[in-house]
Amino acid sequence: MNSDMLVRITRYYRALNRLRSIGLEKVFAHNLADAAGVSAAIVRKDFSILEIHGQKRGGYEIVELIAKLGSILGKGNPQNVIVIGCGRIGKALMHYSGFEPDGIRIVAGFDSDPLVYSDASHPIPVYPLSRLEEVIEAMDVNVAIITVPESSAADCYQRLVEANIQGVLNFSPVTLKPQVIDGKLRPVVHNINIALELEQIFYEIQYPKEA
Amino acid sequence: MNSDMLVRITRYYRALNRLRSIGLEKVFAHNLADAAGVSAAIVRKDFSILEIHGQKRGGYEIVELIAKLGSILGKGNPQNVIVIGCGRIGKALMHYSGFEPDGIRIVAGFDSDPLVYSDASHPIPVYPLSRLEEVIEAMDVNVAIITVPESSAADCYQRLVEANIQGVLNFSPVTLKPQVIDGKLRPVVHNINIALELEQIFYEIQYPKEA
Repeated sequence: MNSDMLVRITRYYRALNRLRSIGLEKVFAHNLADAAGVSAAIVRKDFSILEIHGQKRGGYEIVELIAKLGSILGKGNPQNVIVIGCGRIGKALMHYSGFEPDGIRIVAGFDSDPLVYSDASHPIPVYPLSRLEEVIEAMDVNVAIITVPESSAADCYQRLVEANIQGVLNFSPVTLKPQVIDGKLRPVVHNINIALELEQIFYEIQYPKEA
Repeated sequence: MNSDMLVRITRYYRALNRLRSIGLEKVFAHNLADAAGVSAAIVRKDFSILEIHGQKRGGYEIVELIAKLGSILGKGNPQNVIVIGCGRIGKALMHYSGFEPDGIRIVAGFDSDPLVYSDASHPIPVYPLSRLEEVIEAMDVNVAIITVPESSAADCYQRLVEANIQGVLNFSPVTLKPQVIDGKLRPVVHNINIALELEQIFYEIQYPKEA
């Protein structure tokens, strides 16, 4: 499966969970197409590749689709996530409730500042960075979100790699790269650089695309 | 220029500004390559396409490179940005100091809640949503960041389009799409869906790439 198809499947999956939460039982390809921002033909093609078949009338059973796509997306595995760096962005993520419907749980935060990790007002436990490896193992954490300043991003990343973390979502302005471990590129790293996104938008508005 | 090359150029530009701020005057292709996460051969190829030539010894003049890349990236234009939705993520962006070196200024926030827009403790002015069009025009704003909840994202976006905004960085979970205006796709929209990024990471860690 290529990465565009993966993006679409995660979108279908999210849309299906929303539709189920408002009481729907069946869905048509064109409903999912609207939710994922693609054409109904693409939804049908994706489902055909995945060997998912609808009924002639009434569309697809939502519960069945969620189960099938969920197993493709590895929803059986633990989805515990930690946040490294509890500044404003880190705190915003710790309070964000939009992850729960996707089965993602932010289980702990880490900070190097005693004023931050001694503060009991956080919605989840916040630990000193010195306890990183211990908590990752105890809580069966696979993925970490990095929201530390640029100056400490590379060090935090190295510690996460050594603690055998499998995936990293990096909001620091440093571009983090996977390493070669047992012949594979690990961990999976997604870099989100907000300033860079804005830069690109400012560039692209000078050359708007043809419709 | 394709989008990969654009990403590289914005990275070179950011790295150059950092190098200048620590007092360097010249830079080699391999330094920029390290900063942008590519090979030196790619940097040289990009510069050759852009008709940027280094000296035989000592590398490229940083100040000249910044001027050339800056003009390619449209740095002469106003880069005033507003934030729609001053919840936790919106506030984090309003306080973020990492945009200034790139010439991006967050000039105003907007919120529908009187408790938020009457609060004088924000680092920049926060207005009621009713003043959106007026402030966009008065402050010559081209780009907006959307950090409102899912339920109001589509409405906010429509108002921004009608106020002739040119670019949108969308953090709401709704996927926003450009419209066709005068035969062009407008505005430029970048959607950042944090839950979706985490979903994809959880998927990809099941199938690590070969090195």
